Amino acid sequence: MNAYRPHAADAAFILFDVLQAHDTLAQLPALADNADPNLMRQVLDEAGKFVGQVVAPLNRPGDEIGAQYENGAVTMPPGFRDAYQAFWRAGWPALSHAPEHGGQGLPTVLEMVLYEWLSAANHGWTMAPGLLHGASECIRQHGGPELRARYLEKVATGEWLATMCLTEPHAGSDLGLARTKAVPLPDGRYALSGTKIFISGGEHDLSDNIVHLVLARLPDAVPGPKGLSLFLVPKFYDDGRRSAVVCERIEEKMGLHGSPTCVMRFDEAAGWLVGEPGKGLNAMFVMMNAARLHVALQGVGLLDAAWQKADAYARERRQMRAPGPRDASQPADPIIRHPAVQRLLDTQRAWIDAGRVLAYRTAVELDVARHDPDPARRRQAGHWCALVTPVLKAAWTDQAFQGASDCLQVFGGHGYVREWGIEQIVRDSRVAMIYEGTNEIQAQDLLFRKVLADEGRALSGLLEGLEADLEGDASAAGARARTGLAKLSDLLDALRTSGATASENLHAVAGDFLRVAALALMSWAWARLVRADAPGNGATAFERWVWPELSMRHGMVRQALIA
Amino acid sequence: MNAYRPHAADAAFILFDVLQAHDTLAQLPALADNADPNLMRQVLDEAGKFVGQVVAPLNRPGDEIGAQYENGAVTMPPGFRDAYQAFWRAGWPALSHAPEHGGQGLPTVLEMVLYEWLSAANHGWTMAPGLLHGASECIRQHGGPELRARYLEKVATGEWLATMCLTEPHAGSDLGLARTKAVPLPDGRYALSGTKIFISGGEHDLSDNIVHLVLARLPDAVPGPKGLSLFLVPKFYDDGRRSAVVCERIEEKMGLHGSPTCVMRFDEAAGWLVGEPGKGLNAMFVMMNAARLHVALQGVGLLDAAWQKADAYARERRQMRAPGPRDASQPADPIIRHPAVQRLLDTQRAWIDAGRVLAYRTAVELDVARHDPDPARRRQAGHWCALVTPVLKAAWTDQAFQGASDCLQVFGGHGYVREWGIEQIVRDSRVAMIYEGTNEIQAQDLLFRKVLADEGRALSGLLEGLEADLEGDASAAGARARTGLAKLSDLLDALRTSGATASENLHAVAGDFLRVAALALMSWAWARLVRADAPGNGATAFERWVWPELSMRHGMVRQALIA
Repeated sequence: MNAYRPHAADAAFILFDVLQAHDTLAQLPALADNADPNLMRQVLDEAGKFVGQVVAPLNRPGDEIGAQYENGAVTMPPGFRDAYQAFWRAGWPALSHAPEHGGQGLPTVLEMVLYEWLSAANHGWTMAPGLLHGASECIRQHGGPELRARYLEKVATGEWLATMCLTEPHAGSDLGLARTKAVPLPDGRYALSGTKIFISGGEHDLSDNIVHLVLARLPDAVPGPKGLSLFLVPKFYDDGRRSAVVCERIEEKMGLHGSPTCVMRFDEAAGWLVGEPGKGLNAMFVMMNAARLHVALQGVGLLDAAWQKADAYARERRQMRAPGPRDASQPADPIIRHPAVQRLLDTQRAWIDAGRVLAYRTAVELDVARHDPDPARRRQAGHWCALVTPVLKAAWTDQAFQGASDCLQVFGGHGYVREWGIEQIVRDSRVAMIYEGTNEIQAQDLLFRKVLADEGRALSGLLEGLEADLEGDASAAGARARTGLAKLSDLLDALRTSGATASENLHAVAGDFLRVAALALMSWAWARLVRADAPGNGATAFERWVWPELSMRHGMVRQALIA
Repeated sequence: MNAYRPHAADAAFILFDVLQAHDTLAQLPALADNADPNLMRQVLDEAGKFVGQVVAPLNRPGDEIGAQYENGAVTMPPGFRDAYQAFWRAGWPALSHAPEHGGQGLPTVLEMVLYEWLSAANHGWTMAPGLLHGASECIRQHGGPELRARYLEKVATGEWLATMCLTEPHAGSDLGLARTKAVPLPDGRYALSGTKIFISGGEHDLSDNIVHLVLARLPDAVPGPKGLSLFLVPKFYDDGRRSAVVCERIEEKMGLHGSPTCVMRFDEAAGWLVGEPGKGLNAMFVMMNAARLHVALQGVGLLDAAWQKADAYARERRQMRAPGPRDASQPADPIIRHPAVQRLLDTQRAWIDAGRVLAYRTAVELDVARHDPDPARRRQAGHWCALVTPVLKAAWTDQAFQGASDCLQVFGGHGYVREWGIEQIVRDSRVAMIYEGTNEIQAQDLLFRKVLADEGRALSGLLEGLEADLEGDASAAGARARTGLAKLSDLLDALRTSGATASENLHAVAGDFLRVAALALMSWAWARLVRADAPGNGATAFERWVWPELSMRHGMVRQALIA
């Protein structure tokens, strides 16, 4: 079984040759000093070494042994704690944090590349630090001075890990149904009581403390989502006492065995309010775009890990004669020479490379939205992130699972057994279609909240920007991208004139609308990749095997609007 | 967790109201006495009870405990042996066998319905008897009188279970590479030596003996597939001595834990030649159509099992408000009222119901091919089976996995944990895309061996028959089916005139050609279902959510032919 290997040069090619990310970042005063391509390449090289040498080898024991629960405590798989301690001490969690919070002030996109690789190397292990960024942003933006002083640097550096305690047994996608209670205490804190489920890293032995961010209801709260407030409850208080937060059990799951999914019981556990009463969901949504982009990159990374395994196997394994010239010295040809296998592998490359272009671009836009001196440019960048993030999260996690299953198929029966590690990727990747908002929620979010709510203005602006970028591109890939963007634009026009915003039809095709957006964005990404002379067969695979879906989905949305 | 329940009335509806299977079967002298719908309904009722009460409850322990290996022996999960002993003693394996071999002489389609249900209820357990039919057919057609006398009735009745030992570590899809040797012994038997892998039920405690059918090479055999002969080696000889066949280990798999997948070592194990030297693959292919139809029905059954779980959950689980009138007494609506969820569930019904129509029809054609007095009708039925079986195997096992994953999505995070049993179906179903010939092999088989090899004549004949069946059908479903069949016909014409039979392009789109065939057949099935007033939303779901793919795939094949 070959372990995943990150390729820093591939990431650098996308960042600098395809996206010219350094030019954009150099214009942001807060990042200009750290936007040098050579510096960024060095960081990527170091990150690649850490991921490949320290984290990747723990992936299989993470699956086979898994996190173990006993009597309220969770023991992580062998090697997990040491790797995590090395990780935070080397400063990786704080890579893109501001220096004043213990960070290194590097562009967000480097953090995103790092998380793509970590997820590809060891999805289970990566779940733990994956939540740090959202949690520290939340504390930074919404925590009062006392909370910030106590918790911000510890969480930002990763010395203490964090959780998001949102879901309850009866409240999943619909958090407004949550019932956990928070009762004021005389000392200004609150006593939290209730049960939270599906809490990733709710209990473990990776870090010396765990900081829980918890949605709960104050006694006078209105029903529904507007009655939710956000609280912080640590595993241990500053004086070393343990809080009344108990891990009741961990779930038996399809995969992701290296990450404990905990049922957490709060027994009048004392904690602090974060932000204003009734604004809990808003505080949570602050971290949503970055967290969803993380998940999109998990999809890209897991797909790349699956492709690496299948590509290597297809070059070694010989079965039957392929069409074309034969090697008479061997009884059969490598299966990569069979056109159906080559198509399958190339199709994953079409998704991986375009996914990187779009996700890295989105990570750059996150920095632009934060740091650009021009408010109009910040707003525009914010629109990009709001629109593109749900598309990436849904389409690339769908593809991670589907593509990993396709890659398993390359191994035949050998893929179904544990031996080569490919079936683990299928099992692990499945969860990314569910968490951080199911992919159906992403589609609803895109169509209703991000597109229809402003009558398509933000999306129109985004499409105009991409069309302008394609001006003068006389390549076939450029022409295809213009067609793709026009198809999406056509749906926008149809939506504006249909007046059917509340119809059931539209709810039923939100997923198809998201696919059209994904494929149109992908066509733009491939125009950019072709312009930069990207190596490999991805461009052809995109044209022949992926692109035809766009017309089909476009027709399905169109049909729903006239039905 | 709700266990799967077979619904005999649903099967009867397809058999009698949609397909009028009793009319066709009544015309076959060998089956006429047993083609009475009332008799068949009684058999289905009894089968449903056995499956639901005896086999279904063992599914979860089968996954969680699984088959256990120790020191050459395999212990099956609790309850498996008792259920199997009850199964064969009640005569279920021999349902469709001729009375002279201990069978009941009932139509093959009843056996197929039984196996659909068994697979849905407990895929792992069903693997064991699933191989009996091919093995007994093989012994019946190719075994000499002595072998038949010793083994046929034992295998036909299921008192002894059987295996097919084909795959070797370096020889999977390409069996011609197999190296296991067979050396003649003085007593007329042969000593077999070699290692076979992926042997389902190679060792277990379900039955008192196990009969292995093994592909191996005689000393003077030519290289490649024409050098393979078939042999029979039992676990125990008649005198009670154990043969030199050793189970070395069982595989750790993604799913199907209730079925031991064995590595079998043959150490000069004595056995008998079955059929002629060098004709081993032919003897194996005898059982291929029936075995592949079994696997297609596993797909249908597993998809139905997944749908049953998701449908029940979606009626109970309330999250968020759905479009349309609201029930103010509840804080949220059942998720089945969300259009995206309803679409997802209805789409599975579109596949399940059409899959049953096509698979049950194919099972009837198997009997026609065997028993019709008219040689022209027998030949026509043989063409149906040869053409439709690979389509059903590939398209419905793909859908079983994809659809089970879709059904998992209905549960959100609750689907990813073991609790509801849906993730087991995703894991179990994945293997059906691989075994009995991978789905890529099915596509190659269809396009190159079944269609291009006779220049499309058999497929043209099949399409003419279906078109004739639609004559006078003025419904929208009938019109759609005519369009579907015409699209497939158009590809046939294009293939005939392209002269590109050997091109790489064609190899790359064999899977798309199979999808066009699947969707065209499905459109015919839905025309028949609509004609019989099938209940539910399947017809609409087929039209809106499944049918659009046909044009896309048609375009992809067309494009490859002109490229």
